[in-house]
Amino acid sequence: MQTDITGRLLISCPDRPGIVAGVSQFLYACGANILDASQHSTDPKEGLFFMRMSFQLDNPSFTKEQLEKDFQEKVAAPRQMEWRIDYPDRRKQMVIMVSRYDHCLMELLWRWRSGELPVDIPLVISNHLELKQFVEDFGIPFHYLPVDAGNKPLQEQEAIKLIRRANADFIVLARYMQILSPEFVSVFPGRIINIHHSFLPAFAGANPYRNAYNRGVKLIGATAHYVTNDLDEGPIIDQDVARVSHKHEVTDLILLGRDIERQVLTRAVIAHIDDRVIIHGNKTIVF
Amino acid sequence: MQTDITGRLLISCPDRPGIVAGVSQFLYACGANILDASQHSTDPKEGLFFMRMSFQLDNPSFTKEQLEKDFQEKVAAPRQMEWRIDYPDRRKQMVIMVSRYDHCLMELLWRWRSGELPVDIPLVISNHLELKQFVEDFGIPFHYLPVDAGNKPLQEQEAIKLIRRANADFIVLARYMQILSPEFVSVFPGRIINIHHSFLPAFAGANPYRNAYNRGVKLIGATAHYVTNDLDEGPIIDQDVARVSHKHEVTDLILLGRDIERQVLTRAVIAHIDDRVIIHGNKTIVF
Amino acid sequence: MQTDITGRLLISCPDRPGIVAGVSQFLYACGANILDASQHSTDPKEGLFFMRMSFQLDNPSFTKEQLEKDFQEKVAAPRQMEWRIDYPDRRKQMVIMVSRYDHCLMELLWRWRSGELPVDIPLVISNHLELKQFVEDFGIPFHYLPVDAGNKPLQEQEAIKLIRRANADFIVLARYMQILSPEFVSVFPGRIINIHHSFLPAFAGANPYRNAYNRGVKLIGATAHYVTNDLDEGPIIDQDVARVSHKHEVTDLILLGRDIERQVLTRAVIAHIDDRVIIHGNKTIVF
Amino acid sequence: MQTDITGRLLISCPDRPGIVAGVSQFLYACGANILDASQHSTDPKEGLFFMRMSFQLDNPSFTKEQLEKDFQEKVAAPRQMEWRIDYPDRRKQMVIMVSRYDHCLMELLWRWRSGELPVDIPLVISNHLELKQFVEDFGIPFHYLPVDAGNKPLQEQEAIKLIRRANADFIVLARYMQILSPEFVSVFPGRIINIHHSFLPAFAGANPYRNAYNRGVKLIGATAHYVTNDLDEGPIIDQDVARVSHKHEVTDLILLGRDIERQVLTRAVIAHIDDRVIIHGNKTIVF
Repeated sequence: MQTDITGRLLISCPDRPGIVAGVSQFLYACGANILDASQHSTDPKEGLFFMRMSFQLDNPSFTKEQLEKDFQEKVAAPRQMEWRIDYPDRRKQMVIMVSRYDHCLMELLWRWRSGELPVDIPLVISNHLELKQFVEDFGIPFHYLPVDAGNKPLQEQEAIKLIRRANADFIVLARYMQILSPEFVSVFPGRIINIHHSFLPAFAGANPYRNAYNRGVKLIGATAHYVTNDLDEGPIIDQDVARVSHKHEVTDLILLGRDIERQVLTRAVIAHIDDRVIIHGNKTIVF
Repeated sequence: MQTDITGRLLISCPDRPGIVAGVSQFLYACGANILDASQHSTDPKEGLFFMRMSFQLDNPSFTKEQLEKDFQEKVAAPRQMEWRIDYPDRRKQMVIMVSRYDHCLMELLWRWRSGELPVDIPLVISNHLELKQFVEDFGIPFHYLPVDAGNKPLQEQEAIKLIRRANADFIVLARYMQILSPEFVSVFPGRIINIHHSFLPAFAGANPYRNAYNRGVKLIGATAHYVTNDLDEGPIIDQDVARVSHKHEVTDLILLGRDIERQVLTRAVIAHIDDRVIIHGNKTIVF
Repeated sequence: MQTDITGRLLISCPDRPGIVAGVSQFLYACGANILDASQHSTDPKEGLFFMRMSFQLDNPSFTKEQLEKDFQEKVAAPRQMEWRIDYPDRRKQMVIMVSRYDHCLMELLWRWRSGELPVDIPLVISNHLELKQFVEDFGIPFHYLPVDAGNKPLQEQEAIKLIRRANADFIVLARYMQILSPEFVSVFPGRIINIHHSFLPAFAGANPYRNAYNRGVKLIGATAHYVTNDLDEGPIIDQDVARVSHKHEVTDLILLGRDIERQVLTRAVIAHIDDRVIIHGNKTIVF
Repeated sequence: MQTDITGRLLISCPDRPGIVAGVSQFLYACGANILDASQHSTDPKEGLFFMRMSFQLDNPSFTKEQLEKDFQEKVAAPRQMEWRIDYPDRRKQMVIMVSRYDHCLMELLWRWRSGELPVDIPLVISNHLELKQFVEDFGIPFHYLPVDAGNKPLQEQEAIKLIRRANADFIVLARYMQILSPEFVSVFPGRIINIHHSFLPAFAGANPYRNAYNRGVKLIGATAHYVTNDLDEGPIIDQDVARVSHKHEVTDLILLGRDIERQVLTRAVIAHIDDRVIIHGNKTIVF
């Protein structure tokens, strides 16, 4: 017998009066208590409404399935809602892809072991061997899929197979230095998080720290975003910067940048795990 | 005929299921559209619920009075709510008290003239004459109430009279360098905002920059808070800091501090004007 | 009889041993006390050395002219130095150009009146009339030079004449919304400071806040830089950012951006006044 | 035969003309090239001068001993200098003391392995066993010295013995939750770095996050400082803060605080390793 369901309801729909009332009335009638709610309306021209409601339901007569069925019929369908409910009691499956740099990986694995990231990590995939031991020391399987000029499509297929077999909910590119093909990206839409080592849209593409140095900027940054087929142009989840000066050589920027990358990627991953991010076109709503 | 009411509903009450449903259902039934909603529950032991809902009501059959009467009867009374509705179409009356430093005053008046602060400023009160011309150039009446060892109670009574006559909603101490008596404070509970030139609770009282210098801190700060009878211990609305080093003499800290004071006080005043602050004991909820 | 000279010596030259020794020995021999010194060496491949030394000279037998003549002969010439000495006792002449937005202008004028900007402001030039009264209230002459499709070269010539007549040391574009011609820029190389309302190189050109909104960035910024003939590509002096979210509409970004623009432009102007900026190619060294 | 010495000279002495000239002239005469120099003068009343100069000496006829002997005779003695030269080619020995929390330890060890901390870590001392495996996985000896009501003096003596045997240059308390006795502190004056989990002087002592929560502050912080016999009152090396709101429970503050502690402690340790910190009374000069 299932009791005490905690859920996070995410909604996108045309904006009109009565949505909050309808949803909260439904949850109340089911015996649920609303723990937290955030909403956002776009400008009237676009006229869209977004909401995240977390609730607790301690009603033995309800299963998740029944709740969702009722919600669809009574609330969602009449209002043309796109929606989903996530249940924190089911831990998300997070796959990490990484190349040679260990700082983002280290940050994620350390926080995961500390209990800060409530996910399972069924596997780490890398195109290099350097971090194998490091990953396995955390008790996580490491898959080596080296990529060269000829085998990329093949290795991506292999990666997709591994990721699917692991029932992965999302993929984190923790400084994975290969550009994923449109085929790969299309398999996991809105489910691949990348960390780019610049303050996008400045310095997209390769060598952002070198380019930042050449331009003489006084702040460097990092950007976590969902991957789309437009390189470094996907919806931004989080960004941050650090102050630099003429004293910083490129190598200093790289070192300092590591710390920003670690923090920004972590915040984006936690927001994603908490179901606080809604993708809307090429932008995000982060509740 | 009154139409198109915009309102901001603030609620504090014991936490229990159905509050959001009850309130939003009520507003929907009245024909109101919820523009924005934020809520906060304290830990279960304390068990309190706070909410801010802004709504738009375009229903010619409703007056503000009717809306409030109905809300009290149908929603608030059964749930032991403390509540109020503020209507942005009624501009708040903001009185500023200031001594000799002009930076916070300048910031507020400039933003007010730019339209960023949707308030009226019926008067400025000062215990010094230095800023008279400056204030009057903005078309605002300036009242000079000098304070000395003997006349403080008298001058405070005079200030209270002026403030009441102006129907002031709240008072901003923009570096007013006199400690207000408990009698004065008790007349305007939760309605006096002060800017203290330190990161409270560090360096409460006089000469915070001197004390920060002597302690050798690497950040200095400012704190905007509601005034209570415990000096510098009222509920904090906002705080911020700036980085300093051994190179900063006390005079440098004072200069740098000005900028933090201006920003923090402005943010706190705007939050207050927008009805985004709820005082709860000695703390604030800032939605 | 001239005594008690305070000076700021700025040097660029090929890096090699003995520069600090040579310069400090020279100043010591003249009876000067070094108050502060900063230096920077570029990477060995480029091999350049930059230094700023502020000193105090209380030697009745020395004039500024003598000091500079001796320095050139004994220290600078043998080491192929580019150098200059600025004397804070001669206040720099700062001309401001502005269009309609008052926030940067207000910030500069208020700080100037407060004594924070040790300059004279001989005139303000604008292509609009809106800020005339505002400027004249500070006791500063206001020159109206409207620009249209046909008269730009003429009005620029007029501006150059006014600026030269005022013996201006540098020009601040406090949101001056006209692109200056190469002819104008070439008259004041390294002496025009602009504030651009984005985090350059992101969102160069027109409508940066609109573009930032469309891109969905989570931070907006401002950049102060010297003007060159490449639009928004001159040497950056300072930058800063503020956090934004999906809740910020374009108008919110504009409002929030104002505060960053004010701060960044102020810091850049103060650095320039203090002779702490050396331009090196398309970058700056800010001591 | 020793060549190519890199050194960092740190000086404190009475301020008077000619110090920079004297020192730089000496180094030049020895054949040294000054890589970087920073100086600081206190206010004239106190009249002290501090300088850090890093230099490179490629002169086979000089040993470190000879350099230091000459410097003392020719430069330091006549000017009553306190001074020392550190040589980066001799890696400092850093001992870490820790209790149960792993976040600061993890950060230090990870950076050490990445090569960002150019030190040796001869041992880690803990009063708990939890982190033994974690430390030994890095190849670092772990010493368990449990402390109870009765054995503290004894265990401190044991710690002193271990630290001395390791020729430790300095000790980092990476969340070591025991108060060190005056006897212990006096053995390592200016050589023990602690991380305190608040923005000192606010919330000194125990439970700073709980106290910050109760006070309702809008920023929490961390402070790295040298340990003296006045609890949490030693010279501050670095501080930082993060923004919090009414939504943060004490457990959230603790989690968020971890990240600030890690960053602040790291920056302080790196400054110490780089010989950029001079202690002056109860304050620091951090070049």
